[in-house]
Amino acid sequence: MMRPTLAPLDFTHDASLNSWVESANTPDSDFPIQNLPIGVFRRAGSLEFFRPGVAIGEQIVDLLAARAAGVLPADVAVTLNGCERGELNAFMAQGRVARVALRQALSQALREGSSQQTVLNTCLMPQASAEYAVPCRIGDYTDFYTGIHHATTVGKLFRPDQPLMPNYKWVPIGYHGRTSSIGVSGQAFPRPKGQTKGPNDEVPVLRPSQRLDYELELGVFVGQGNALGEPIAMDQAEDHAFGLVLLNDWSARDLQAWEYQPLGPFLSKNFASTISPWIVTMEALAPFRAPFVRPEGDPQPLPYLDSDGNRLQGGLDVELDVLIETQAMRDAGLAPQCLSQSSYRDAYWTVAQMLAHHTVNGCNLQPGDLLGSGTQSGPRPEQAGSLLELTSGGKNALTLANGETRTFLQDGDAIILRGHCDRSGFRRIGFGDCRGQVLAARG
Amino acid sequence: MMRPTLAPLDFTHDASLNSWVESANTPDSDFPIQNLPIGVFRRAGSLEFFRPGVAIGEQIVDLLAARAAGVLPADVAVTLNGCERGELNAFMAQGRVARVALRQALSQALREGSSQQTVLNTCLMPQASAEYAVPCRIGDYTDFYTGIHHATTVGKLFRPDQPLMPNYKWVPIGYHGRTSSIGVSGQAFPRPKGQTKGPNDEVPVLRPSQRLDYELELGVFVGQGNALGEPIAMDQAEDHAFGLVLLNDWSARDLQAWEYQPLGPFLSKNFASTISPWIVTMEALAPFRAPFVRPEGDPQPLPYLDSDGNRLQGGLDVELDVLIETQAMRDAGLAPQCLSQSSYRDAYWTVAQMLAHHTVNGCNLQPGDLLGSGTQSGPRPEQAGSLLELTSGGKNALTLANGETRTFLQDGDAIILRGHCDRSGFRRIGFGDCRGQVLAARG
Repeated sequence: MMRPTLAPLDFTHDASLNSWVESANTPDSDFPIQNLPIGVFRRAGSLEFFRPGVAIGEQIVDLLAARAAGVLPADVAVTLNGCERGELNAFMAQGRVARVALRQALSQALREGSSQQTVLNTCLMPQASAEYAVPCRIGDYTDFYTGIHHATTVGKLFRPDQPLMPNYKWVPIGYHGRTSSIGVSGQAFPRPKGQTKGPNDEVPVLRPSQRLDYELELGVFVGQGNALGEPIAMDQAEDHAFGLVLLNDWSARDLQAWEYQPLGPFLSKNFASTISPWIVTMEALAPFRAPFVRPEGDPQPLPYLDSDGNRLQGGLDVELDVLIETQAMRDAGLAPQCLSQSSYRDAYWTVAQMLAHHTVNGCNLQPGDLLGSGTQSGPRPEQAGSLLELTSGGKNALTLANGETRTFLQDGDAIILRGHCDRSGFRRIGFGDCRGQVLAARG
Repeated sequence: MMRPTLAPLDFTHDASLNSWVESANTPDSDFPIQNLPIGVFRRAGSLEFFRPGVAIGEQIVDLLAARAAGVLPADVAVTLNGCERGELNAFMAQGRVARVALRQALSQALREGSSQQTVLNTCLMPQASAEYAVPCRIGDYTDFYTGIHHATTVGKLFRPDQPLMPNYKWVPIGYHGRTSSIGVSGQAFPRPKGQTKGPNDEVPVLRPSQRLDYELELGVFVGQGNALGEPIAMDQAEDHAFGLVLLNDWSARDLQAWEYQPLGPFLSKNFASTISPWIVTMEALAPFRAPFVRPEGDPQPLPYLDSDGNRLQGGLDVELDVLIETQAMRDAGLAPQCLSQSSYRDAYWTVAQMLAHHTVNGCNLQPGDLLGSGTQSGPRPEQAGSLLELTSGGKNALTLANGETRTFLQDGDAIILRGHCDRSGFRRIGFGDCRGQVLAARG
C-alpha cells in the first residue's frame, strides 16, 4: 500500500515513448507524450467557441475533432459531453477514471507508429495559431498560504520577534479569493488604484498602487466534488484533485497593508490573477511524487491532516522559475531575465492536506474550483517568490542585467512563471508559460 | 437632481393599488402588489427545473407560464430568455430597464379589475406548494462589514481600548466568501467541525464548534456588471444593484479565533450561508430611501465614495428581526421568539459605496454576484445582530421565554430572519422568511 490514493504509473509514463508529433520529442519540450495536459483553445482572434484540447509538442490535439474523427474510443468520447463550449467542468467531475482513459487513448494514438496518425494529424492546430481561456467555470477560488519560507520572510517584515503566527504549523491557512478576475496567460491589466495610508499620512488617499507585486504559486483544480456536510478524508483527498497549473496571484502591497485588518486581503488581490492555460494532470505528475516529512522538532499534523500516503508521497517535485521582461528589455530585444527559482517540495502543506482541511467543516468543493498554493519561496533569500521578499519590503532594489532597477513592478513589466518536473528515468514535463503584464493605471 | 441614480417612483408604488389576488391586500402581507419580488421556484418535492416567479400575496406568478399565456408584452417576454432553468443571471444582466418593464407589466396585470385576471389566474401556484433555490449562479460572494455597532461591540471583546480599527471609517471593509455553500431559506446543515485552541490548551484539537452563531445581514444582488479594469463611479453605482435579500452568515466563533490571522475568516464561515428566496428589487425599495449622513465628527468619505445622491438618499429603511425556534419550542408548539430588532439605516456604508469601493481597483462584478452587508446591529445592546454580541462573547447567557438559556446555538435551533419596510403614505413591503437550522455534527 505504498500509493493508496496516488496515481499509479502505467505505460503512459514510459520514458522511451516518442510521438509522431516530432516537436514533442525534443528533450526540453514541456509537452512530450508523457505529459498530455488539457486546456481550452480556439484559433487566435476568431469568434469560435473555445473547445477542449491537449498539448503535444508545439501542437494541440483538438479533442472534439478527434472525437468526430473516431480516434477516441466510445467510452472516452462520452466523457467529453458537456465540454463543447470550452468549460471542462463536466469532464473534471468524472474524476480519475475519465482522465486516465483519455490519457491512455491519446498516448496510444500519438505514439510513433500509431495507426491513427493519419486521421489524428488532421485534428492538430499549432499552438502558435491558438489562444486560450480559463479552462472551466471556476465556482470558488481559495488561496492557501503553504509556503513557510514566504510566510516567515513576510512575517519578519511586520513582526521581527514572531514571524510565524502560532497557528501556522497546525492550520493550512487559507482564504477565499476572487474568481471573476482570474485570467489565462497573456492577461494584461491596468495598475490598480486603491486607498493607501503611510505611517506619517494624516488621512488615506486614493492612488495607483506603488508597491505592485507578483506571487509565484501553483494552482490545484478540483476534479470530483464533495457534498455539503461531507468532509473529504486524507486517504481519499487526491481523488478530488484534477491537476495543476501555474498561478500568479498579483498583489498590491500598499493597498493590502491599509485594508487587511481585520478580515484579510480584498482589493489588494482581486484586480487580477493569472493562470497557465494547460492543466498538468495528477497522472502526468505521478513520477514526481516525493516523501513529505516535517522538519525535526515541528509538531505532527492533527490526524485529519495526516496519512501514510501523504507522508510517503504527498510531496511534488515541481521546479519553479520567475522571469521578468520589462518594456526596456522588449525594446532592446533582450530575453526575459530570471528573478528566482524554487521548488514546490518546500511547501509546508500538501495538495491532499489542502483538500482535507478545506472540507473538514463540511464545506463543499465543486468540479473546477481552484486552490492556490500560496507563494512558493525556497529556504534561501534568492529563492523568494515575490518582490516583497527579494527586495526586503522595497528597501533593497534589484539591479537587472540591463542596468534597470526594481523594488516593485513598473508599468509595462511582464512576469513569466515557468514550471517543470525532471527525474532520472522519466521524461521531463513542463507547464508552459504563465505570462501577465502590468499596464498603466487608467485615467 | 434629487435622485440622480436612484429608482424613481411611478404608478407601481401607488399605495391605493390592490390586487385581485386577495391575500396580497392584507396590511401585514410581505408581498402586496407594490413589492413584486423575484425568485425561482418549483412544486415542492418535484424534479422539475426551477423557474422564475414573482411573489404576490400567498401566491407565485409563474413567469414562464405567464409568458406562454401571452400575459407579458413582447418586450418583457424577451427579457426572460436564458432564465428557463432557474438561473436569473441573464435577466439580472439587463439592468433596471428590464426590471421596470416586468414590474410595470405585472402591476397592471395583477391589479383589481385587470382584463388579464382570468388568464393570469391559471399561472399561479400557492407558495405553500412551492420550494425555492438560490435564484442565480452566484459567481462571487463578497461579505462587507458595514455594521459599525457590530464592529465596535465585537472589537471591544478583543481590543477594549481600540475597538474600531483605524481603517474602519475610511474603507468599506470586505472580504471574499464562499459561494458553493450558499443555500436558500430552509437550509439545514450539520454543526461544523474545526480546529480550536483555547488560551490554556497546549495544542489545538479538532471538534464540533462550541460557539456557533448567526449573523443578521442583508444581501445585495448585482444586476449589470462592469468590465475588468473599469471602476463603477458613485453616480452610476446603483445602476448595478438588482435587489436585496436577507442573509444569515453563520459563523463558528471558536474556529474563527484560531484560524483568522493573518488572512481572515475561512472555515469559520464557509460551511453554510442562508438567503431568503425572494429578491426585493431596488424599484420596490424606492419609497424607503433615506438620507445618509455621517455622525458629527466623523471623517467625510473620500471623493470616490461620495456623491450628492448618496448623501440625500443613499440610506435604506429596512427594519430587521431575528427570531429563534429551538427544538423544545417546536415540541411544545411555541412560536419563534424574537432575539433582536435593528435597522439597515444604521449601516455605516451604503449599497452604492460597497459597489464603488469593490470596483475602484478595477475588479469586475458580474450579474448575480452577491454582496453581504455585514452584521446589522443597532446602537443599543439589545439590537445586536449576533449571539456573540447579545451574550457578551458567551459570558452572559440569554434566558428564553420557555426557560431555556443560550450563549451560542444548540443542535436543532432554527434562526429566522425577517425584514420589512414601512413608511407613511406607502404600502408596507416585506422580505419573507430566511430560515436556517443547525443539525447535530456528523460522526
